[in-house]
Amino acid sequence: MLSLQSVSSQRWLAQAASHLDEILIDHAHCEHKAAATAMSLLGAYIENRQLCVEMTRIVQEELEHFHLVLDLLERRGIRFRKQPPGHYGRELNQLVSRNEPQRAVDRLLVASLIEARSCERFSLLAKHVDDSELADFYASLFESEARHHTTYVKLAKDFMSEALVKRRLNELATAEATIIATGHHLPRMHS
Amino acid sequence: MLSLQSVSSQRWLAQAASHLDEILIDHAHCEHKAAATAMSLLGAYIENRQLCVEMTRIVQEELEHFHLVLDLLERRGIRFRKQPPGHYGRELNQLVSRNEPQRAVDRLLVASLIEARSCERFSLLAKHVDDSELADFYASLFESEARHHTTYVKLAKDFMSEALVKRRLNELATAEATIIATGHHLPRMHS
Repeated sequence: MLSLQSVSSQRWLAQAASHLDEILIDHAHCEHKAAATAMSLLGAYIENRQLCVEMTRIVQEELEHFHLVLDLLERRGIRFRKQPPGHYGRELNQLVSRNEPQRAVDRLLVASLIEARSCERFSLLAKHVDDSELADFYASLFESEARHHTTYVKLAKDFMSEALVKRRLNELATAEATIIATGHHLPRMHS
Repeated sequence: MLSLQSVSSQRWLAQAASHLDEILIDHAHCEHKAAATAMSLLGAYIENRQLCVEMTRIVQEELEHFHLVLDLLERRGIRFRKQPPGHYGRELNQLVSRNEPQRAVDRLLVASLIEARSCERFSLLAKHVDDSELADFYASLFESEARHHTTYVKLAKDFMSEALVKRRLNELATAEATIIATGHHLPRMHS
């Protein structure tokens, strides 16, 4: 699905389903991090107008989702707080080249894979979580995450040929599948 | 005006008026930096809900202004590009404490002073620039910059008493007046 090379494990689904409060808190942080990533990409490639337009849209949508999750936490009496992050984002970001234009392509494709994995996991949660308000909420986020994935891949083709982007997306997706398969003891959206 | 302790010099106004294209390019960068600053503050103080709500609003408004300036540049056939920054932002940020909660107060008050100075300079440009489209544009931005100034000062009072915030704002405004008075050879919004 969406360039991913693996499906999420039963291990993760069981871990998430038994720690839904902690997953929700992490989800809010994920939405913020997605907005911050888009803002950072806008700053790094500010002379690319199409990228600026798309990143602005993504910043706005992710911040809107961030507040939706905060509202949900508040209604449920769950205190939003900082949490130690998992391993996923850090390990993925270590794959990013230091040299342009490869760096631009890598940053965009890593962002695209994180959106894809979120999308896959929202879909799983929507199907398997008993809490119907949460299940509906996850289902409602599916479409925008899928669209963000596609936007990031499309933008990468501004920096390199379609063939090179495709090959690199394939390499990074292989690495992503390995990173997500190792799991993490803390229950997170990407543990 | 708006906590500022000086008015902009004739030197700046003359420099800006004779380099309006470069000032417009810098203006676009200022709007982006204002959005990035608000996003960074949101991330740093993410457990403060009111701050998150206000920073989200500022991110959205500054990005909207950023695109308005890009549109204006495009209509005028001026290529938007990266430019070496002036001295203002860097010198102001050197005044920020490393220790919380002083750091939060300082970051918010520095942001409030940058908004105030932008506001004062937009007002000057609106009055003195011959180009009526530009003059109207600067006038239209005045209100939001003034509101952002007030928002930042209000949020600082969440981290320290009103008296301490007032005293620190006074100190930082004195420093800001010194920094802006030195000027810069590159024509910038804050040169």
